[in-house]
Amino acid sequence: MTPVIRRTGRRPGNPDTREAILTAARSAFAERGFDAASIRQIATAAGVDPALVHHYFGSKEELFRATIDIPIDPAVLLPAVLAGDPDQIGERLVRTFLGVWDSPAGSAAVALLRSATNNEWTARLLREFLVTQVLRRVLDQLDLDPAELPLRGALVATQMIGLAMMRYVIRLEPVASATPDTLATTLGPTIHRYLTAPLP
Amino acid sequence: MTPVIRRTGRRPGNPDTREAILTAARSAFAERGFDAASIRQIATAAGVDPALVHHYFGSKEELFRATIDIPIDPAVLLPAVLAGDPDQIGERLVRTFLGVWDSPAGSAAVALLRSATNNEWTARLLREFLVTQVLRRVLDQLDLDPAELPLRGALVATQMIGLAMMRYVIRLEPVASATPDTLATTLGPTIHRYLTAPLP
Repeated sequence: MTPVIRRTGRRPGNPDTREAILTAARSAFAERGFDAASIRQIATAAGVDPALVHHYFGSKEELFRATIDIPIDPAVLLPAVLAGDPDQIGERLVRTFLGVWDSPAGSAAVALLRSATNNEWTARLLREFLVTQVLRRVLDQLDLDPAELPLRGALVATQMIGLAMMRYVIRLEPVASATPDTLATTLGPTIHRYLTAPLP
Repeated sequence: MTPVIRRTGRRPGNPDTREAILTAARSAFAERGFDAASIRQIATAAGVDPALVHHYFGSKEELFRATIDIPIDPAVLLPAVLAGDPDQIGERLVRTFLGVWDSPAGSAAVALLRSATNNEWTARLLREFLVTQVLRRVLDQLDLDPAELPLRGALVATQMIGLAMMRYVIRLEPVASATPDTLATTLGPTIHRYLTAPLP
């Protein structure tokens, strides 16, 4: 029997049912994307009632995070990034990002990055997570040309995922053991430029 | 019998001997680092004469590239990055980098990145490759404070490896299909800043 770890206050439920829902959800989110996937379709594919999906996993966002095993809710973390001096948003994003990866939740993030590197389906889920759960939440709050948002978001992702790779996976010094202050000061202006500077 | 692909004009040699040398070289480069590892030690560990290592693989640099299966010689590519307007060095580095990864050799680079993500020994070899074969060759040509070179190099690595991850592994759009021009124009100034801007 698969051990079920309770990450939230919700009932873990029957492990087989839970796993069937997760498998159906992974397929739906990877194939159709987060926006187009629906709890109803996922429930049908898993052979359960939609109410049971909500009962086990909560919202569509929570179900999505469960499919990639990430116990981090960007909706909780990002308001602090967006509040305050707009010129410091890059530094705040780097600090918040490091706060997550340096915490116990960081090992789940490293595992996701490793898995996405070697598995096309996990790569799709990571892409969906970055775009719909992280980047969109940041970009939608800034006064930017909507047509430019995808490139700005993807540029930010190159720098943030590269930071995660070098600090936590490849562990290249001195980035691997640099203080959050050093990294926020050096990388923050890059994020700020990708968010706000004129694009070609 | 292991198929031997001839990558250079050198004789492929006996596959078992060749593999024994590569195994010894991987250990030496990963454990001691590129600088401290010696052809003599590697030959002894493989039970062959040092002359045979040179005969099969050429220089220590060529042997190192063979251990990570990268048919790319940074010493050949980097002079073009360093020549020309110093203010454009970031853009030229991005263009040269994309030229390699977009070429047939790119699949070897993607394989190395995937392997380094999941294997600590390959991660060590990738670190050594980045530092001793790529970053040092660039940084040593610039008029910079030697004490700052490791951080500058590692910051450059976060952006370049993040670009590789997003364009070739995770394939996040629009970075995955952006033109080299777009990426050189947007990411080039970041590289330039990491190389030259004051550090905290």
